[in-house]
Amino acid sequence: MADAYQAHLDIYEKDFGVRFTKEDCLGREFWHCVPVDHQASVKDHAWQVGYFRNLKVIPDSQEVLAELSSRHDVYIASAAMQFPNSLREKSDWLDEHFPFIPWQKRILCGHKHVLKGDVLIDDRAYNLEKFEGRRLLFTSPHNTGLTDFERVSSWKEIASLFL
Amino acid sequence: MADAYQAHLDIYEKDFGVRFTKEDCLGREFWHCVPVDHQASVKDHAWQVGYFRNLKVIPDSQEVLAELSSRHDVYIASAAMQFPNSLREKSDWLDEHFPFIPWQKRILCGHKHVLKGDVLIDDRAYNLEKFEGRRLLFTSPHNTGLTDFERVSSWKEIASLFL
Repeated sequence: MADAYQAHLDIYEKDFGVRFTKEDCLGREFWHCVPVDHQASVKDHAWQVGYFRNLKVIPDSQEVLAELSSRHDVYIASAAMQFPNSLREKSDWLDEHFPFIPWQKRILCGHKHVLKGDVLIDDRAYNLEKFEGRRLLFTSPHNTGLTDFERVSSWKEIASLFL
Repeated sequence: MADAYQAHLDIYEKDFGVRFTKEDCLGREFWHCVPVDHQASVKDHAWQVGYFRNLKVIPDSQEVLAELSSRHDVYIASAAMQFPNSLREKSDWLDEHFPFIPWQKRILCGHKHVLKGDVLIDDRAYNLEKFEGRRLLFTSPHNTGLTDFERVSSWKEIASLFL
């Protein structure tokens, strides 16, 4: 739903004047793509006030999730507890961009190991690994090298699976 | 873990100079115990800055949870999404009082319907109702009238069940 990877590219360009594209980064975390003496700066992005609040919405996620929510029992589970500053920002971000997902169906968590459900869509393999239902890896530059999971690369693709 | 009911009594006494005890309130939400023209004030408590951050710790919860965590896979799941101001406060409260529960094992949620596990301890029947494992209702004044669930009334009792 939120394009956290693009945010790294944008902040890095602002800080260092160098523009990376996602294609430059395939198979790697963004901090692996920058000079060693810039890595600490990149790792600090998620601790900055506003990082999560200002994330861009991934194309088609709003329309597809609105439609999915009208037909299925959709929960949003976001790994947030590592970054206490992200908690309120993620709540406000959902209020702005996904107001049709009510608070009852929002989860901010650490590990996602105790979530049950029929389908989990996530861009992190470690979030999918212990899930007992159908597991869909949402493509992000950092995970393009993985082959362990069924993959989806866009919300249109998700729509074609479940709508 | 957190004594939210006592907090209502304490804030009410501060605001209106009248001291209720938990025994005065058995079987009722606290807002049901006060005069009609005070009910809106009581319902506002949870929206006040600091309400969640300043909750008192229920006796023995720290010692028992520390020991449980050393032997079992313990997660904290707190219904928090309804109150965006509570998110950071609950995270900070856990950091202060339950630092041995790492962020990986903390969950802030709305409904608890998508949590899986062997045991759920909660003072709200609606949180227990859809849980598939063993369900324990932790006694609070508001739930003393319920007979649908196995009940525990102290952390010592929980210790005797699981330690």
